[in-house]
Amino acid sequence: MGRDEAHLGEFDLIRRYFSRIGRARSDVLLGVGDDAALLRMPADTELAAAVDTIVAGRHFPHDSDARSIGHRALAVNLSDLAAMGATPAWATLALTLPSADPDWLERFSGGLADLANAHGVALVGGDTTAGPLTISVQVMGHVARGTALRRSGAHAGDLLAVTGTLGDAGAGLALATGSHTTVDDAVVRELRQRFEYPTPRVEFGATARGTATAAMDLSDGLVGDLPKLACASGLAAHVDVERLPLSSDLQAFASPQRARDWALGAGDDYELLLAVPPDGYAKLASLAAQLDLRLTAIGELRRGTGVSWALNGANFTPAAHGYDHFRGPSTQITV
Amino acid sequence: MGRDEAHLGEFDLIRRYFSRIGRARSDVLLGVGDDAALLRMPADTELAAAVDTIVAGRHFPHDSDARSIGHRALAVNLSDLAAMGATPAWATLALTLPSADPDWLERFSGGLADLANAHGVALVGGDTTAGPLTISVQVMGHVARGTALRRSGAHAGDLLAVTGTLGDAGAGLALATGSHTTVDDAVVRELRQRFEYPTPRVEFGATARGTATAAMDLSDGLVGDLPKLACASGLAAHVDVERLPLSSDLQAFASPQRARDWALGAGDDYELLLAVPPDGYAKLASLAAQLDLRLTAIGELRRGTGVSWALNGANFTPAAHGYDHFRGPSTQITV
Repeated sequence: MGRDEAHLGEFDLIRRYFSRIGRARSDVLLGVGDDAALLRMPADTELAAAVDTIVAGRHFPHDSDARSIGHRALAVNLSDLAAMGATPAWATLALTLPSADPDWLERFSGGLADLANAHGVALVGGDTTAGPLTISVQVMGHVARGTALRRSGAHAGDLLAVTGTLGDAGAGLALATGSHTTVDDAVVRELRQRFEYPTPRVEFGATARGTATAAMDLSDGLVGDLPKLACASGLAAHVDVERLPLSSDLQAFASPQRARDWALGAGDDYELLLAVPPDGYAKLASLAAQLDLRLTAIGELRRGTGVSWALNGANFTPAAHGYDHFRGPSTQITV
Repeated sequence: MGRDEAHLGEFDLIRRYFSRIGRARSDVLLGVGDDAALLRMPADTELAAAVDTIVAGRHFPHDSDARSIGHRALAVNLSDLAAMGATPAWATLALTLPSADPDWLERFSGGLADLANAHGVALVGGDTTAGPLTISVQVMGHVARGTALRRSGAHAGDLLAVTGTLGDAGAGLALATGSHTTVDDAVVRELRQRFEYPTPRVEFGATARGTATAAMDLSDGLVGDLPKLACASGLAAHVDVERLPLSSDLQAFASPQRARDWALGAGDDYELLLAVPPDGYAKLASLAAQLDLRLTAIGELRRGTGVSWALNGANFTPAAHGYDHFRGPSTQITV
């Protein structure tokens, strides 16, 4: 290399595409371009920090639109802060990519920037390296002291609730990787959109503090994630599977059984799973409605350990398991 | 997969190797295991955050000892905070690796843990994914409000100084990748150590606040890095190349010209480059000496732009250029 002028220098590359992502924030004292960023925390808050990596061929198809990849890389992290009820403020990006293709970078950084702007998040540090496509984003935010939603705060008797609808992203991934010409185009577009452009429930997470007792985001599927919340709270969980919220698009696209399998086992929905005391549920549902967001009670937390599932009153054993990056895509179901 | 019991689950993997890295800190309200970490910042400080990625075959040889890789992944980030004069507190790890080999993980996490413990840094978040070996660490720390060392703070007339010795890591990399049986074993060990286990100058960076006017760390080599500091400060820089501090090991191993080339152009030394007002230099050198650290004045900052080099009074043009991840390893010099 060295003589290949089609390649941008690393310094130019970072500057051109990433130095202006996100809103100008007065709490960013020093952003991209020095050895570290300098950031000012609001008084009486705690710093919330999360990191998530997405890898081509594992978290998204190799031929994904770079705009979607940029969106997803930030969305999965914002979703982690949403699950704490924290307000995102800053992000750093560690981008490993095979070559510095300007078109790809334009679309990738555009997808990242649009979501960052929507949440007022500033990109304050970046690192680009040559290698197989891997994107790590770390987000930092803040939450009023002592108010964060942890996985461990649920009580026996709390209702289990989820935001939005489940299973859409699983169907969207199948659509993104398969060929489905018999389905109505609007349905296909909507389901793919749900996989490619997940919506982190940031506003609702912040709103739920003080009412919900515990929360986590559904990145690996309900079957994989619910045991983590139950275990962290030292409780058992029960779910009535027929109550899982399914979108009309998913029901138009898939058989009832397939829709249920996706809602239970597929990851990537990035909805929130919450524990809510029964006497706080109506308030939380009303707060969700104000954000045009559906909230559905799907079960409850009980004394004991483990997770039980019922379908129309009968014991039920979900087929799918949570996504485990080293065991492989056990939740990936092909239509 | 799914039936391959030799593979650890992701959840177990993170827990087993990474959940206890670093000291227990009372400011870690919630560490690994929830959606995000919750951290408490000291009063009257700014948050300093940096991210750096290292990739096998690009930042370290494919056959590197995993202990060294773990050390380096954190060291390069601690060095960024050192360059700000910030005190590191917390780190997150995004680890992409081809397989969950327990021996490799044991050594990798050991190297990371030893350095984290030495600096009192807690690992508060982690993410493991299957894929080609890529390690991103983000560090977070704090620095008293308004006191951070930026690249942009230097004044015309300030001396340029560097900590430690330069070029050792360049020679160490050549030794790690080549075959050099004619050289004294202790020399080889020491130079390789300098590449494999760089020492971030954290204590000195914090000490230099209030005396130095600007700082950065030397990750890409003096020829590549100095222009960034000069440019950020809106100044020209001049270096007397014969003043570059060379270790006795490097001088024992390499010809004067090769030693100089490494000191100028090779990266990976992770020493600090500082701008120091002439009347503050003696104080800073004394502070360095208290930390058993060499401080050497190598030139000065002047009005104007660009960097000039002289060797024994004559104009000099360095052969090597800073490392650029997309242009390739232009600084890599083979013995």
